[in-house]
Amino acid sequence: MKFIENGVCAAKGFRAAGIHVGVKTHADWKKDVALIVSETPCAAAGVFTRNVVKAAPIHVDIAHLENGVARAVIANSGNANACAPHGEEYAERMCAAAAGVIGCEPGDVLVSSTGVIGQTLNIEAIEGGVRKLYDALDASAEASDAAAHAIMTTDTAKKEAAVETVIGGKTVRIGGIAKGSGMIHPNMGTMLCFLTTDCAISSGMIRAALLETAEVSFNRISVDGDTSTNDSCIVLANGLAGNAEITAKGPDYDAFLEALQALCVRLAREMASDGEGAKHLITCTVSGAESVKSAETIAKSVISSTLMKAAIFGADANWGRALCAMGYSGEAFDPEKVDVSFASAAGEIAVCANGRGLEFDEDKAKRILTEHDVEIRITMGEGGAACTCWGCDITYDYIKINGDYRT
Amino acid sequence: MKFIENGVCAAKGFRAAGIHVGVKTHADWKKDVALIVSETPCAAAGVFTRNVVKAAPIHVDIAHLENGVARAVIANSGNANACAPHGEEYAERMCAAAAGVIGCEPGDVLVSSTGVIGQTLNIEAIEGGVRKLYDALDASAEASDAAAHAIMTTDTAKKEAAVETVIGGKTVRIGGIAKGSGMIHPNMGTMLCFLTTDCAISSGMIRAALLETAEVSFNRISVDGDTSTNDSCIVLANGLAGNAEITAKGPDYDAFLEALQALCVRLAREMASDGEGAKHLITCTVSGAESVKSAETIAKSVISSTLMKAAIFGADANWGRALCAMGYSGEAFDPEKVDVSFASAAGEIAVCANGRGLEFDEDKAKRILTEHDVEIRITMGEGGAACTCWGCDITYDYIKINGDYRT
Repeated sequence: MKFIENGVCAAKGFRAAGIHVGVKTHADWKKDVALIVSETPCAAAGVFTRNVVKAAPIHVDIAHLENGVARAVIANSGNANACAPHGEEYAERMCAAAAGVIGCEPGDVLVSSTGVIGQTLNIEAIEGGVRKLYDALDASAEASDAAAHAIMTTDTAKKEAAVETVIGGKTVRIGGIAKGSGMIHPNMGTMLCFLTTDCAISSGMIRAALLETAEVSFNRISVDGDTSTNDSCIVLANGLAGNAEITAKGPDYDAFLEALQALCVRLAREMASDGEGAKHLITCTVSGAESVKSAETIAKSVISSTLMKAAIFGADANWGRALCAMGYSGEAFDPEKVDVSFASAAGEIAVCANGRGLEFDEDKAKRILTEHDVEIRITMGEGGAACTCWGCDITYDYIKINGDYRT
Repeated sequence: MKFIENGVCAAKGFRAAGIHVGVKTHADWKKDVALIVSETPCAAAGVFTRNVVKAAPIHVDIAHLENGVARAVIANSGNANACAPHGEEYAERMCAAAAGVIGCEPGDVLVSSTGVIGQTLNIEAIEGGVRKLYDALDASAEASDAAAHAIMTTDTAKKEAAVETVIGGKTVRIGGIAKGSGMIHPNMGTMLCFLTTDCAISSGMIRAALLETAEVSFNRISVDGDTSTNDSCIVLANGLAGNAEITAKGPDYDAFLEALQALCVRLAREMASDGEGAKHLITCTVSGAESVKSAETIAKSVISSTLMKAAIFGADANWGRALCAMGYSGEAFDPEKVDVSFASAAGEIAVCANGRGLEFDEDKAKRILTEHDVEIRITMGEGGAACTCWGCDITYDYIKINGDYRT
């Protein structure tokens, strides 16, 4: 298994495009609609936000995915099409517009939106631009890049990756683009992720693999604790790699799962790292826990703590906030068995042993926490389970970005 | 029932003091130890943090409150005595030091600490200063003020209030001081609150009243979602008002409860309003809910949303974030029955009806949200229950304060 280039166009038979059609008006040079198309029908699956308030495209996608088949994804940024007039009608019209130029059924198109909640989507702009969007489709790295840019909102960098592995003697590729930034929380925060693969896999198994993968990647990141109305992760598998179709668990499924998880963990880390205004990627590894679930709950609580995030922003080794966040996570444990250290490329420093503060070199701690990627390592002494979650610091820029997002 | 002066010294037979002894070294002009003493033994009760990681004083207080009797509270700021060496030993020594000068049993003294986690408490400074602290005891407004200042950490204003009511023909007073600021969350965040009353009430009933009161006051505020290791609310009732002792629920209990709740809601609002770096007090009122619990969960989710808080900081009427926070609160409801408006002294503006955005005057919305006290009014159409919770916005100053708290 290795990482390769070409993002969402890495797998055979997929083309992508991203252009500006006019959904975004306040920054009219920015791309705002993406299209991803497979040359043949795909086994397809999606996981969506658990928020009770779901954006219109999610209702449409759930219906379109009932048969487990799809061929394309159309997505816009600049407007979430959530709590907005004509929501489902316009989401269906996006599918129909894409289907019209592709030459497939509207039910074979999936749709996503991200942006402001509660405002009417400029559907005419999308319908008016869909031919140009189709004409821009290409299988190149540039096409994947354009699609990745077209789904960005406050993201400062595109998120794009691809992996290659061998399944049943055939080269199989999985690629993806994603967007994240604000609102990313363990139950998926405004994130969109579109994955494409040429692996031959049944719709039941692609769905199983996607669920297993989301649990250990996107569900283990947090930016600000808010869970969005629009979070979606969609995968399309067209089978063009020519491997024997994966229809049950076994070595082939495991190989596919390993590659999918590696891809999604990378995209998830990129999302956390690019949290709105973030200056640090924070990795929290909890080991010695009673169960993976317990380790995960505790690690999420630590990376979600606003106080912990502010301390990392200040490169302040305030480990007490980690203990405090562990304590209100809802998990039971003995604080007097907890050890904490901070680590980064600049080294590692132990700051707490058996629940009590250690004397430590503040200058060294500052050097360690000044790195971009910092890790909070927690050992619990409760058992043998471990889990890693990812988050980011909170900065002046987060406040600035979110204090006036709509205008 | 009316609000009166003199804070924690308003009730008969209570004296207070606050001085600097040297626990705080980086700001040595600031008071850091408070003492509150009743001239006679009191029925006493406390509610404490639900955090699994509890500071040492909390373990000591739970033991000292087993008999339901206490006479004094000693509290320091500048060090939380949590996850620190010699924690319980030093907390007991604080009680013993206070008992020595008062002339009571150490078990009749309660203790609280607030400040940095994980550092050794300067117990010698407290022991060395306790005589001076005792000599400063007074029943004046100035004494209450001094005690209120001595428990402040990043608070920008003291929190102090008192109420007077009539129970069984006798004038009964309840007073209190509190500190809050960062980390205040529904399950009590680094808040300390010390309440004194001359009401005659049994230790069982004062405990019941305190629990009922905490639920509708301190448990309905949030600053940053973090729940501290040290949160404590303690009440002492010395009975000097001369009313017939309240030993069961009934009209006298109800009158006492009404006064206690009015006092604690005021202190809770002051805490929310003075959240670290806050520029706005945010009130969220949810009505038309299925149950009070449901309304409370939803209101708390809205005031705890970092994105909602950032929007209020920016005076941005981004109501979609309120709907989004409602949606991930864990409560079930129909988004299409939700109405939202923003209100303040500058008026009220409807922004969402039946889960859909309304056209509204952005300038008017901006004027409304520019006021210090703003309200988010949510109507759900699910039932007849309502609840109000309080929070604050998140600002650049919050990040600044918490990015480098320890130094």
